[in-house]
Amino acid sequence: MIEPAGVLPQQAWRLDPDPTPGPAEVVIDVERLNLDAASYRQLREAHPDAADLRAAVLGIVAERGKMQNPVTGSGGMLMGTVRAVGPDSPLGLKPGDRVATLVSLSLTPLVITDGLAGWDGAGEQVPCRGTAVLFGRSIAAVLPADLPESLALSVLDVCGAPALTDRIVRRKNVERGRPATVCVLGGGGKSGSLSLVAARRAGAGRLVALVPTEAEAASVRAAGIADEVVLADARNPVAVGAAVGEQVDVTVVCVDVPGCEHGAVLATADGGTVIFFSMATSFSAAALGAEGLAADVEMLVGNGYVPGHADFALDLLRAEPGVRMMFEARERQTSPV
Amino acid sequence: MIEPAGVLPQQAWRLDPDPTPGPAEVVIDVERLNLDAASYRQLREAHPDAADLRAAVLGIVAERGKMQNPVTGSGGMLMGTVRAVGPDSPLGLKPGDRVATLVSLSLTPLVITDGLAGWDGAGEQVPCRGTAVLFGRSIAAVLPADLPESLALSVLDVCGAPALTDRIVRRKNVERGRPATVCVLGGGGKSGSLSLVAARRAGAGRLVALVPTEAEAASVRAAGIADEVVLADARNPVAVGAAVGEQVDVTVVCVDVPGCEHGAVLATADGGTVIFFSMATSFSAAALGAEGLAADVEMLVGNGYVPGHADFALDLLRAEPGVRMMFEARERQTSPV
Repeated sequence: MIEPAGVLPQQAWRLDPDPTPGPAEVVIDVERLNLDAASYRQLREAHPDAADLRAAVLGIVAERGKMQNPVTGSGGMLMGTVRAVGPDSPLGLKPGDRVATLVSLSLTPLVITDGLAGWDGAGEQVPCRGTAVLFGRSIAAVLPADLPESLALSVLDVCGAPALTDRIVRRKNVERGRPATVCVLGGGGKSGSLSLVAARRAGAGRLVALVPTEAEAASVRAAGIADEVVLADARNPVAVGAAVGEQVDVTVVCVDVPGCEHGAVLATADGGTVIFFSMATSFSAAALGAEGLAADVEMLVGNGYVPGHADFALDLLRAEPGVRMMFEARERQTSPV
Repeated sequence: MIEPAGVLPQQAWRLDPDPTPGPAEVVIDVERLNLDAASYRQLREAHPDAADLRAAVLGIVAERGKMQNPVTGSGGMLMGTVRAVGPDSPLGLKPGDRVATLVSLSLTPLVITDGLAGWDGAGEQVPCRGTAVLFGRSIAAVLPADLPESLALSVLDVCGAPALTDRIVRRKNVERGRPATVCVLGGGGKSGSLSLVAARRAGAGRLVALVPTEAEAASVRAAGIADEVVLADARNPVAVGAAVGEQVDVTVVCVDVPGCEHGAVLATADGGTVIFFSMATSFSAAALGAEGLAADVEMLVGNGYVPGHADFALDLLRAEPGVRMMFEARERQTSPV
């Protein structure tokens, strides 16, 4: 990292993207970026024109040496092929391996060399030529042979959510002495749908998906991954509370827009837990909202890393045809034509 | 609340501060505000001159109908006397009760009538005349008779931190099958010192206080509230990791400056928990930092509300002369002369 000195890569304003591997580093030939949903949404809203959007992403990477959205602070992940491996790299990769990075683009040194010519701006998956560097403590998954690459990448991008949901639901079942009830805000999205099936497999009781539109509700119903599908704007706390009805033990926030903190708190019973996976979450809104509502709920910052999270998420996709159907439909919507 | 309609008070830009109680409301004659530490620090840095600082606070309250710092999003609390109680108020208060509010100023309708003439700007405790409104779901503590009011207010302001620390350390003792080791970043401050003694009483093992200066270290040592006192800038992750040495099971972040997320993660062992109490915490820095470090740590948004938190914190102050000494020294430093 280069600016300022002494901080970790995610905090740094600018990284050195030189594609020469240090002793513990791995250099990747990049093929595709997968922008974080909150980052992509912000960029697309600010730059509705595709050429402007490409220029904005290129500008960020040129200036910062990494694809970290300065507004949201978030990044995403990438897919590519291993070009070179430093002699002391602990990652177990070899040249030619096709991999996805499981650490954020916000701390991954990156150079883009093709001007993003292959990206039409219509989705968060960005075809891209360039190079990236993985550090010794990075995480990268070798892509599975049995799944289309873009599908695997799409799952791996959110693989922390189902793994942490699994852990928290299992803990809550024990604490409550009965199957925990669960609501997923944004249950129609990528992390939301995987979190729903993770909660089911962890032994959840009543399982509620909250979605913003009838189209998403139909998709979740068709996938058969929730007991109840309710419609509400997750940013409206009163509407969320009314839609969910009886408060649940675990609320999982997978909505990539700001302002969902209070609805999540209102949906959650005393002694319950809220897991915030959205990068649009405001720390102070969550902390002060729960205090202001005198809500005795535990609130977790969704850590994107849980040991085994990649295999766990890929196995969910393989085992749950409903979720796979939703992911494949999303692929068709957002892939470049 | 008035702008925008349909949100909860903390999210609202502007509240209606009219001091006429609704059926479930309580009106308070305000005597003192206690600004949130992050808010006070930001305001003082932006307005070094006392008259400018007073004008800034008055301007916020006039515009928003509440003392919510637009930069930090945080508020603080207040002390006063109950003026009027609506017939349906569930708070159990009566006119004449001297109370402190335990919900944030960021959602408390407020009018200031004395121009803050009694505040010299030197500390976060702000003598103030005016009125405030408590809602039905608010929390207010009747001030104890055995403690000076400013001291009680100072403790109540941070009473969520020791209560949640107690809960998490007790849980971690069970999970680990041995006394959990604990580090408090900012162990010399109000929430930090109370969290240290709460951790000790919850049965913590090794107990580390991390502080930024030799003066604070001397104060913590003299109070006898930690096994080890180490010096480091909490914003420097590498320095924090080196100062703490062996990673701990629970890290409590009580430093009211931005940029402490990665140090907290680095100080924490796999399977450990970080509790963020600082309102200067960045959600995305915490989430992406842990992911980027492949750190399997649970990260909690410090909820300022835990049932019984006010009595718990006041009892800690009564029982722990070291902490009381630190609070009283702080009072002397920051009280208006």
